[in-house]
Amino acid sequence: MAVEIRGAMPPVPTNFDAGGALDLDGFASNFARWNTTGLSGYVVLGSNGEFVSLSESEKLAVLERARSVIPRNKLMIAGTGVESTRLTIELTRRAAGLGADAAIVITPSYFRPGYSNDTYIKHYLAVADASPIPILGYNMPSYAGVDLPSSVWIAISKHPNIVGYKESGPNIVKISEVAANAEPHFSVIAGSTSYLYPSVVVGAKAAVMGLANLAPESCVALFNAAVSGDSKLARERHERLLEANAAVTTRFGVAGMKAGMDLCGYHGGLPRLPVAPLSDSDRRILADILLRTGLPVTQDAMA
Amino acid sequence: MAVEIRGAMPPVPTNFDAGGALDLDGFASNFARWNTTGLSGYVVLGSNGEFVSLSESEKLAVLERARSVIPRNKLMIAGTGVESTRLTIELTRRAAGLGADAAIVITPSYFRPGYSNDTYIKHYLAVADASPIPILGYNMPSYAGVDLPSSVWIAISKHPNIVGYKESGPNIVKISEVAANAEPHFSVIAGSTSYLYPSVVVGAKAAVMGLANLAPESCVALFNAAVSGDSKLARERHERLLEANAAVTTRFGVAGMKAGMDLCGYHGGLPRLPVAPLSDSDRRILADILLRTGLPVTQDAMA
Amino acid sequence: MAVEIRGAMPPVPTNFDAGGALDLDGFASNFARWNTTGLSGYVVLGSNGEFVSLSESEKLAVLERARSVIPRNKLMIAGTGVESTRLTIELTRRAAGLGADAAIVITPSYFRPGYSNDTYIKHYLAVADASPIPILGYNMPSYAGVDLPSSVWIAISKHPNIVGYKESGPNIVKISEVAANAEPHFSVIAGSTSYLYPSVVVGAKAAVMGLANLAPESCVALFNAAVSGDSKLARERHERLLEANAAVTTRFGVAGMKAGMDLCGYHGGLPRLPVAPLSDSDRRILADILLRTGLPVTQDAMA
Amino acid sequence: MAVEIRGAMPPVPTNFDAGGALDLDGFASNFARWNTTGLSGYVVLGSNGEFVSLSESEKLAVLERARSVIPRNKLMIAGTGVESTRLTIELTRRAAGLGADAAIVITPSYFRPGYSNDTYIKHYLAVADASPIPILGYNMPSYAGVDLPSSVWIAISKHPNIVGYKESGPNIVKISEVAANAEPHFSVIAGSTSYLYPSVVVGAKAAVMGLANLAPESCVALFNAAVSGDSKLARERHERLLEANAAVTTRFGVAGMKAGMDLCGYHGGLPRLPVAPLSDSDRRILADILLRTGLPVTQDAMA
Repeated sequence: MAVEIRGAMPPVPTNFDAGGALDLDGFASNFARWNTTGLSGYVVLGSNGEFVSLSESEKLAVLERARSVIPRNKLMIAGTGVESTRLTIELTRRAAGLGADAAIVITPSYFRPGYSNDTYIKHYLAVADASPIPILGYNMPSYAGVDLPSSVWIAISKHPNIVGYKESGPNIVKISEVAANAEPHFSVIAGSTSYLYPSVVVGAKAAVMGLANLAPESCVALFNAAVSGDSKLARERHERLLEANAAVTTRFGVAGMKAGMDLCGYHGGLPRLPVAPLSDSDRRILADILLRTGLPVTQDAMA
Repeated sequence: MAVEIRGAMPPVPTNFDAGGALDLDGFASNFARWNTTGLSGYVVLGSNGEFVSLSESEKLAVLERARSVIPRNKLMIAGTGVESTRLTIELTRRAAGLGADAAIVITPSYFRPGYSNDTYIKHYLAVADASPIPILGYNMPSYAGVDLPSSVWIAISKHPNIVGYKESGPNIVKISEVAANAEPHFSVIAGSTSYLYPSVVVGAKAAVMGLANLAPESCVALFNAAVSGDSKLARERHERLLEANAAVTTRFGVAGMKAGMDLCGYHGGLPRLPVAPLSDSDRRILADILLRTGLPVTQDAMA
Repeated sequence: MAVEIRGAMPPVPTNFDAGGALDLDGFASNFARWNTTGLSGYVVLGSNGEFVSLSESEKLAVLERARSVIPRNKLMIAGTGVESTRLTIELTRRAAGLGADAAIVITPSYFRPGYSNDTYIKHYLAVADASPIPILGYNMPSYAGVDLPSSVWIAISKHPNIVGYKESGPNIVKISEVAANAEPHFSVIAGSTSYLYPSVVVGAKAAVMGLANLAPESCVALFNAAVSGDSKLARERHERLLEANAAVTTRFGVAGMKAGMDLCGYHGGLPRLPVAPLSDSDRRILADILLRTGLPVTQDAMA
Repeated sequence: MAVEIRGAMPPVPTNFDAGGALDLDGFASNFARWNTTGLSGYVVLGSNGEFVSLSESEKLAVLERARSVIPRNKLMIAGTGVESTRLTIELTRRAAGLGADAAIVITPSYFRPGYSNDTYIKHYLAVADASPIPILGYNMPSYAGVDLPSSVWIAISKHPNIVGYKESGPNIVKISEVAANAEPHFSVIAGSTSYLYPSVVVGAKAAVMGLANLAPESCVALFNAAVSGDSKLARERHERLLEANAAVTTRFGVAGMKAGMDLCGYHGGLPRLPVAPLSDSDRRILADILLRTGLPVTQDAMA
């Protein structure tokens, strides 16, 4: 409850070896560099962490390793949402036991034609009641196929153990409405670099950005400019990152984000199938975009 | 071509009498008050003008009357888009002949399963080539069912006779991308009060707001705060109008906007069927919202 | 009211000359051949008639000419639906005055976020009350973006002057539910060759088929097999036409249907922009499909 | 490979006790009655089996128990699809080890904005290559948010270890196209009672029906009538079950199906949260529908 969600964070990838098995050493290796930056914390097992593609035991192994490399002064937020309330609670408790500071819980989606707003409110309240650590909501329209209205997030914000929600769609009206009407302990988290700045302008307090996996300094600098009130600088940094951000999110997805990490000297590697690895030609396009953006591409695009 | 699209404008309603016929006097009567405000111009025959519900001759009558009551120092932007390129050109030329300063052209939508981005680019270029007055695009996802990506609007901005586009969805990333990459003569127009402020922050230069039909002073004040760079004031005004704006747009639609005009002493009246008039209970809800917002409700909600 | 909707009909195209103007002679020329077939009637100004791309005066000209070439023993069904109830009634009365036997009225769609099922029921009842000729509903999900549930069509069927509805989506459950529960005077019309047979099996009494514009004999033969109860023959004919039907509907749209008419010796020509004409390569693909289907392609694909 | 998918099957529920834990005895108890009917087999861990709401160990426990109560002369089809190819293969192998005759694999969906048709084809071929038992595809538009076109299922049918696919949407054109063009060893399975009959008419060979959980005899009788060629009898049975089927599928979902089982003397019980149990008033509505349909409601609706 003392947790306040602020600052710039990456949704870290889960790494796999050439055979597709979990690569925990590769996973851990990225934190050494990230920890030296101004990132305020990490989301582990988010969408970019391919949580849907992992077994339960793999998830626990990732969380355990994550805590061992995330310093106590950085937040560790664990993705623990699955389709059922019961198993979400179970995984949240396990994550708490492994040292997560908070849990981020995606909207259940499979049976959504039968779900009402009330279904979601009850789900989040039940998880928050049962969880030893604070809970964050997670609205992810393009992947989960669910886009809860602002009224639901405002209602959910009344629970003292729910400390915010991540909005992963670019609907700035919804972000505004939640930021203006949610309880003070509840942080709106912009789910992408591309709307971080306008979201902060209307009240968001944190950002979780796929681009921060490969360009943490640029993302932190954008976040800092956004909260500083220097609108000229913030808009400049905002515009500079639009194309690169689109490349590693909507355009090339998780595969692009991982390839971008490889290009920038981090450990990215391949996504788990059926997500296809980036093609050679797309990798070249991505490298060009990152270079054009001024990001430190250290690896040959064709390596 | 000398036209530059800036400032705050309402998409004015088309008025009907009790029998459903065009009420041009009612229509004209609102301009006396509007003209005294800081509104920079008017969109005539937009969605809130129920352009889809009018015959061709009714459209021409509205445009003619509009010009007679819109002073030369305020922009008159005429909605001239219909499904075919040919008839859009024809109506645009007529609007120019009646004195419109610019024309706003909605995306054709009926045969959209067969339309590519290229279809839309060709359509807009053909209209712009043939039009004696500058053209604006109009992206209206919820009504037209078409949501063109930023790349299309950026491509279209290269035509010297296309001077902007109105975005009527709250996707702030798209607004950012177009504002950052379109030609300098091309204005991004925020299509609602609820995202005017963050849109201006990322580069929008104008706003067309349904709420401005009933509350022009508040909308102009918000626009001025947004462009002034006073972020505290702008956010305050932005948050104050969120609920009222939602009421007269997404929640209650054209019927709500017209009812709100009646409540605020303008001439609104009924929409054309099949759009249903606001129910009595919704009218009371709307009146409460407007009062809570501090808008000057002058008419009894049940009058 | 004495009108009973049965049999196989084409939704005839509206023809244009090289400059894009209405070509009424081209339009009329196709009927000479069609009238010799087993087609039970014609839908004029349907989607394939590009009704959305025509002016009001063009629509009237098409209807007038249509009646002059459609014999009294074949149904002439006029597409008269526009967005407003008022103008739909006006156009329906004009169509009746020009000799249409019935009018088919598409669902209004522009303001659909605010429309309830009740909105549609009231619209159809108002049109049916005011119309001197019987009314048909028209459900067209892919173009109009509206897909009314079976309950609405069943409710509408209670009006004595509403004699059926055309379903232009392949949802066989909806077709079943309406056929099983609508009033006896109300015909369900399958809106495509590709679901004519299963629709007849569950109770549809008529079909309007784009493919019938170029292959009326094959379409009539399929319809006759479907109603005959010879399931082996019906399935054979059904399967034979699947690919050709898809080509001139979902795959290549109105442009493909018109190109197919040209290939089969009818007068098709170009669609009105922004609908793009078929490319040369697509025209060759289409010709191959028609030939493979065994249809009488009489014109060189590249002519 | 010798497996041929034919006949009528239920997608059996997974049962839970009052505390929400797995109730394997309740689960097993239903088979005694089902096994005496003409059902050709069972789908275990389908959507109605709430597979998305179960842990991996729970899934294995359900499969193990299922095999113990499903006689060898009835098919046991196990739902083994999860988001990643790797874990789908792993679960499929486990299911084979537990005695499943075939596995049904739902389309991965979470990262669908980045998936192409080719993504899906590769996924299914990889699973089929690695599986010791035959594979079925599973197209579930309303829950998974993925609706693969007929061309993909036709392509997938070429693999000798893929023996069919279940279509859980009512698009009869797609069902027709796959049935007409897939390899002979590949069965199209209608995913609901409401389109079983027209699907069989165009070539489907099997049906998996939620309604069969509570009304197996009626569903088997419908299937037999459909394959018999007696179109009058088939249409009669088809129409009789439309309302009851809608109630336990689209209208009331899994909760309704389970409540319907309780009403008919089977063991249904509650769904796992966040799926809400049926309200008392909905339970009464459901009971009325089942009675009206002539189904053997043995339990008081309010018990």
